[in-house]
Amino acid sequence: MPTPLDAIRTDVTIDPYKIGNLLFDPGYRETRTRIASILGSDRIFDKSLRPHLNHRQLLRLSLRIFKRLLELRDAHGWSDLEFTLACRLQDESLPTSLHDITFVPVIASQGTQEQQAYWLPRCKRYEVVGCYAQTELAHGSNVQELETTARFDVTSGEFVISSPRLESTKWWIGGLGVMANHTIVQAVLHLPLPGNPLEYKPYGPHLFIVPVRSLKTHEPLPGITIGDIGPKAYGGFGTVDNGYVRFREVRIPRENMLMRHAQVTLTGEYVRPAHDKLSYGSMVALRAGIPVNLGWSLARAVTIALRYCIHRRQFAATPDGPEQPVITYASVKHRLYPLLATSYAYIIAGRELWAMYQKMLEEVVQQGNMESLAEMHSLSTALKVKSSTDCAKGLEEARKCMGGHGYSHMSGIGPLFANATASQTYEGDNYVISQQTARSLLKHVSALRSSSSTPTSLTASRSSSSRSSSRSSGSSTSSRSSISSRSSPSSISTEHHLPPSSSYLLNTLLAPAQFYTQRSSVKTSGDWYSPAHQLSALEHRAAYLVLELSTSLSTSTPQNWSSHTHTTHRIASAHADVFVATTFRKCVARASSSNLLPDDCAYGLRLLCDIFCLGTLVAGLPELFESGFVDATQARLLRRALDEAVLVRMDVGSAVALTDAFAFTEFEMAGSVLGREDGKVYEGMWRAVREGESGKEREFLEECLEITGHYRRRRGSAKL
Amino acid sequence: MPTPLDAIRTDVTIDPYKIGNLLFDPGYRETRTRIASILGSDRIFDKSLRPHLNHRQLLRLSLRIFKRLLELRDAHGWSDLEFTLACRLQDESLPTSLHDITFVPVIASQGTQEQQAYWLPRCKRYEVVGCYAQTELAHGSNVQELETTARFDVTSGEFVISSPRLESTKWWIGGLGVMANHTIVQAVLHLPLPGNPLEYKPYGPHLFIVPVRSLKTHEPLPGITIGDIGPKAYGGFGTVDNGYVRFREVRIPRENMLMRHAQVTLTGEYVRPAHDKLSYGSMVALRAGIPVNLGWSLARAVTIALRYCIHRRQFAATPDGPEQPVITYASVKHRLYPLLATSYAYIIAGRELWAMYQKMLEEVVQQGNMESLAEMHSLSTALKVKSSTDCAKGLEEARKCMGGHGYSHMSGIGPLFANATASQTYEGDNYVISQQTARSLLKHVSALRSSSSTPTSLTASRSSSSRSSSRSSGSSTSSRSSISSRSSPSSISTEHHLPPSSSYLLNTLLAPAQFYTQRSSVKTSGDWYSPAHQLSALEHRAAYLVLELSTSLSTSTPQNWSSHTHTTHRIASAHADVFVATTFRKCVARASSSNLLPDDCAYGLRLLCDIFCLGTLVAGLPELFESGFVDATQARLLRRALDEAVLVRMDVGSAVALTDAFAFTEFEMAGSVLGREDGKVYEGMWRAVREGESGKEREFLEECLEITGHYRRRRGSAKL
Ligand SMILES: Cc1cc2nc3c(=O)[nH]c(=O)nc-3n(C[C@H](O)[C@H](O)[C@H](O)COP(=O)(O)OP(=O)(O)OC[C@H]3O[C@@H](n4cnc5c(N)ncnc54)[C@H](O)[C@@H]3O)c2cc1C
Ligand SMILES: Cc1cc2nc3c(=O)[nH]c(=O)nc-3n(C[C@H](O)[C@H](O)[C@H](O)COP(=O)(O)OP(=O)(O)OC[C@H]3O[C@@H](n4cnc5c(N)ncnc54)[C@H](O)[C@@H]3O)c2cc1C
Repeated sequence: MPTPLDAIRTDVTIDPYKIGNLLFDPGYRETRTRIASILGSDRIFDKSLRPHLNHRQLLRLSLRIFKRLLELRDAHGWSDLEFTLACRLQDESLPTSLHDITFVPVIASQGTQEQQAYWLPRCKRYEVVGCYAQTELAHGSNVQELETTARFDVTSGEFVISSPRLESTKWWIGGLGVMANHTIVQAVLHLPLPGNPLEYKPYGPHLFIVPVRSLKTHEPLPGITIGDIGPKAYGGFGTVDNGYVRFREVRIPRENMLMRHAQVTLTGEYVRPAHDKLSYGSMVALRAGIPVNLGWSLARAVTIALRYCIHRRQFAATPDGPEQPVITYASVKHRLYPLLATSYAYIIAGRELWAMYQKMLEEVVQQGNMESLAEMHSLSTALKVKSSTDCAKGLEEARKCMGGHGYSHMSGIGPLFANATASQTYEGDNYVISQQTARSLLKHVSALRSSSSTPTSLTASRSSSSRSSSRSSGSSTSSRSSISSRSSPSSISTEHHLPPSSSYLLNTLLAPAQFYTQRSSVKTSGDWYSPAHQLSALEHRAAYLVLELSTSLSTSTPQNWSSHTHTTHRIASAHADVFVATTFRKCVARASSSNLLPDDCAYGLRLLCDIFCLGTLVAGLPELFESGFVDATQARLLRRALDEAVLVRMDVGSAVALTDAFAFTEFEMAGSVLGREDGKVYEGMWRAVREGESGKEREFLEECLEITGHYRRRRGSAKL
Repeated sequence: MPTPLDAIRTDVTIDPYKIGNLLFDPGYRETRTRIASILGSDRIFDKSLRPHLNHRQLLRLSLRIFKRLLELRDAHGWSDLEFTLACRLQDESLPTSLHDITFVPVIASQGTQEQQAYWLPRCKRYEVVGCYAQTELAHGSNVQELETTARFDVTSGEFVISSPRLESTKWWIGGLGVMANHTIVQAVLHLPLPGNPLEYKPYGPHLFIVPVRSLKTHEPLPGITIGDIGPKAYGGFGTVDNGYVRFREVRIPRENMLMRHAQVTLTGEYVRPAHDKLSYGSMVALRAGIPVNLGWSLARAVTIALRYCIHRRQFAATPDGPEQPVITYASVKHRLYPLLATSYAYIIAGRELWAMYQKMLEEVVQQGNMESLAEMHSLSTALKVKSSTDCAKGLEEARKCMGGHGYSHMSGIGPLFANATASQTYEGDNYVISQQTARSLLKHVSALRSSSSTPTSLTASRSSSSRSSSRSSGSSTSSRSSISSRSSPSSISTEHHLPPSSSYLLNTLLAPAQFYTQRSSVKTSGDWYSPAHQLSALEHRAAYLVLELSTSLSTSTPQNWSSHTHTTHRIASAHADVFVATTFRKCVARASSSNLLPDDCAYGLRLLCDIFCLGTLVAGLPELFESGFVDATQARLLRRALDEAVLVRMDVGSAVALTDAFAFTEFEMAGSVLGREDGKVYEGMWRAVREGESGKEREFLEECLEITGHYRRRRGSAKL
């Protein structure tokens, strides 16, 4: 008998594999399938065990998992890529993950040739396992105020690492709790004053490699107080040993300072780095990697929820009819389909961001082009902020879509949310780092103003090269000039070069009277399906928010930045929306025009992109109204367009095909009984409660009888 | 040295105790303090242990906790109220909670006198511990399709309880997993056909008391397959043994059917209940109790987050200045202050709802007034939907406000969210039950239409008694007639009696041309502080949504209700907003005018109410625009009003006083290191990781050495 999913698939003409070509590097799926099937045959990797364990048990399990992965690497001769993939297939970070994604890359980018030659091979053998210790008990966001010191002792040629007070204890450090034997420490460099070697001068935070546990015994080294910081909210990061460490005059050789950029000589002199921003690189990499990962996490949740909502039936449409799959209901479609679209959006835009990051690295290294570093920093920050907000919210929504059973550990979504929500905080708290994007956009606005020929009233032809490059990227169907009905900056000429992601800021050069009379020219709900209309509205919204902040700052006292930190979050989000929508549209346009995709696939993908853009616009309605760009009628048309896309145009078969395109392996889905491909959800739930844990309720007999017998036993004295 | 909180408190003139008088019944705080101090001296109640335990360990702990509570009840001679309070101070439900909040009340309301006399004393002694089993593996929302059967065997005079298939297994039943020895079962009553006693006829779901575990051994009784369904998402409901049970021809005496309303005679005849809605009562009670509980949960989280954000300093305002408490930042205020307002709103409106419920019970019982039951059902549903959505979201937001440390179990907010989010699903999935509120509002609209004298164009004077009664309730300062600038239903006369919560629906009698030209007459941001303006906008928004749905339904095919289930959620939410805002405003007005509160207190409370109403309006901007009620300028003014309320008018001292009014005991705050009253957050975190768990990292030495030594040991063969 075909499963409900297979029955649905028979009618679908979308080819999931072809769609998947846009989401994966060539060969990736095949490798993943191969590795997943190896993992699937080993019970230690069984994700359904984890919800039954407490934090300490989870840590122990995750150490054993990693050990087993090393054995499999040897047994199968896995390449680095394959080994990384096997680690990632665990879904959750391991005590060694921060070693791989921070310790090693930081040494690779901040270490000298000799340092790399010394450390990296040991790292690869996991003989040295490290992590990255920046945050302290009292300081995280404000890196400049970190208190850990690294004082250079000229006599011995060593650095002395100290935590001056309790508050300077390093805290939250992933991998440090039980696993790491080394850590990179952000510490304020102190060098002796040339004239007076007993007095020291601070040179700000620098990076040092500090051994913390014995390679032989794994016991903490002298002067090191170290441990695990304990469980986290919602059981998140349960398999990671976030830890703390306090240093009491810990001595390390001079060679343990990472010296590719700044250096300290044998005699304690400071050599400045060529570019003081160069050390940003590795932080940008971490942020730039977040959106695509979160997109995949959401993709998994949506796949689970969609499958369950097809299987789950509740209520009949007609008195004697059969109960309907709950995916039939508008409220389920309106929650799930936009999430499906969101997961595609962040996978596609996240991959593009990552490609840009790689390209930037080359430019920085080969051409010393620092401008692209600044742009990368601002854009990756905005995307980190928006993708983490949307995906955390989306994961919880997907879980709720499944009703009661969604709250069981058997949904498999719990850990996805518990981990994802932390991404709103780590790699920079979203409200703190949004300010960096906003500052960079404001800088563009003032650079535009000071470099533009006719700053407030403009008539010449639209000519900025950056502008036109972004134009062509998004609007595949209609020309953008017809989008807004009144004044537009068709005429601006400026010397300032805007990066493509910010080209919409050109609009802020308009005189207020012009800017605030710009109107969308949408007249029908069908108009809202035009990419040009969608993107110009998203751009207008972002420009409006930047302009409002710029005006607000210029008309009030200078020190009031802190009273705008709410707005900067909205700005970073709106900025990200423009990039994500543009990139998604571009991807669809390219795939359709180049015949990469057959028509049916292209239609499905375009519809998904419409759902993403329309949903994003609906969420942005307040700004679209307040700026005057959209009126009540257009807003109602927008909602109607979204309704139509979600309730009418998207069919459940296409939705299934679009989740099939994710090509999740059986192994990846195994943590979710509700998302079972074969639809045997109830059997699976039954088996889960009967097997393994079966009979264990007996453990509780004593305690229960203590309660029910309480008053019987004390009958003589009882009042009840 | 004064703590940072005390330093802030010295400047504040608001008297928290007086504010608290609006939140508590007389004497409650004192009782709570007394009981909390008893619990505080017993380590078994220490909440900081719980995050370290897995589900089974938590269950065991919670059984022991309850046992200890029984002992304390005896030792201190606690009254029922005191004992209930001691249970609630555990913060999380216990395996016996469902006994107290479902099993006992259902017997009390659905059982005959004899049944009550038999069961209730045993229940009070916890000799019989029960729960409420309605949901099945395959059916929750759709109660009519429940499959468990109760067939009456005339020969033996017994009911035979069966689960016909795997899918009919009862599932999710709180208290059933390990604790309960009885359960109330919702089962479809089957009675023999009079002529043919071998054929049965179904009479729909009825309630039966079924013993499931032996009173002597606590082992499952014959025919009963029973157990715990395992861990839940985010570790939520960790202390509750949600369970499953499957019945194989389990025989219970006829007397175990709850027979206060429907009855089955000895000979197997069915006696209909007087009112078929009467059995709703206990479900309504459960829903009606949710908003106030969630309000308190949010209150706790906001208290924790506010205290931490006062203590936590990050970044200086000036280059050499001291770092500022993060509460200084707009983004923190804009997140926390509205949540503080929201917690007040749900506590106040929730208490009012509960009072209305009590009053309704009397009316139903004494006067057979079923109309108020319908209204109570619709209103409590709307409030359950909105409060659970807002509070779950708010709890997670409060946690995030605390940055990195907010993600530690030491914030103490994790379990609050993990538990609260389930309230969006239990007692009826929010998207399913919203439809009940929407249906009831639509019914009012059509009743209004068919009973009004001049259905589409109206000119007489506003006279509906329900309308005018709601008028006086909310608008304490200005007359409501000046609120909207164009047509208003100043003229409608109708026979249909609208309950106060729905009086705004009168507006839907206007002709569309009139309704859609109604405009708010707000002209300054100060105008938005007028209760009349606030409430009329909220009312217009709710009326607009109902009207749109009603139009939409009347212009399309009849079976398309399922394509509106997204809208009904928005309707229930908007309906709840009107009630909550009105009730909050009424409470403030009453407290101010009656001199219950001194001026300073009244000012603080009024400001909080403004923040709630303005925040709710900002969230409702899309509908306010789409309906044409508010234009772009008014929206910008609204945002400015909210900004001013949050960033300027509310000061941190008042916010502290308003959280002090919650009067949380030290015991209640003990699960949160971050929320420490004495501000010793970092010391507390340090102690938490050093004590108790200290040195336990040694447990992992072996595993870690296995990893770091992996390639050393196999050096001969290693490729690396
Ligand atoms: C799961 C997890 C893993 C981590 N792993 C590591 C690791 O491996 N290594 C490491 O070094 N660190 C790690 N961290 C720490 C992390 O980098 C910091 O917690 C994060 O950068 C946030 O900083 P904070 O905790 O100081 O937040 P805070 O700055 O204290 O934030 C508290 C509140 O203040 C607000 N706020 C602060 N400053 C401002 C401002 N200027 N304007 C407006 N609002 C402001 C924030 O928005 C927030 O609401 C980890 C954290 C987590 C949660
Ligand atoms: C923590 C917890 C404790 C519980 N305790 C108990 C207990 O003690 N006793 C007990 O009997 N039960 C209990 N339950 C069960 C609970 O009452 C049900 O899970 C709840 O009523 C939701 O029903 P469901 O699971 O069937 O959801 P479903 O109806 O299966 O919902 C699945 C999805 O379909 C959607 N949907 C379903 N029907 C419609 C429709 N007509 N229109 C639009 N959308 C629809 C829902 O919105 C949801 O998105 C508990 C549940 C939880 C989570």
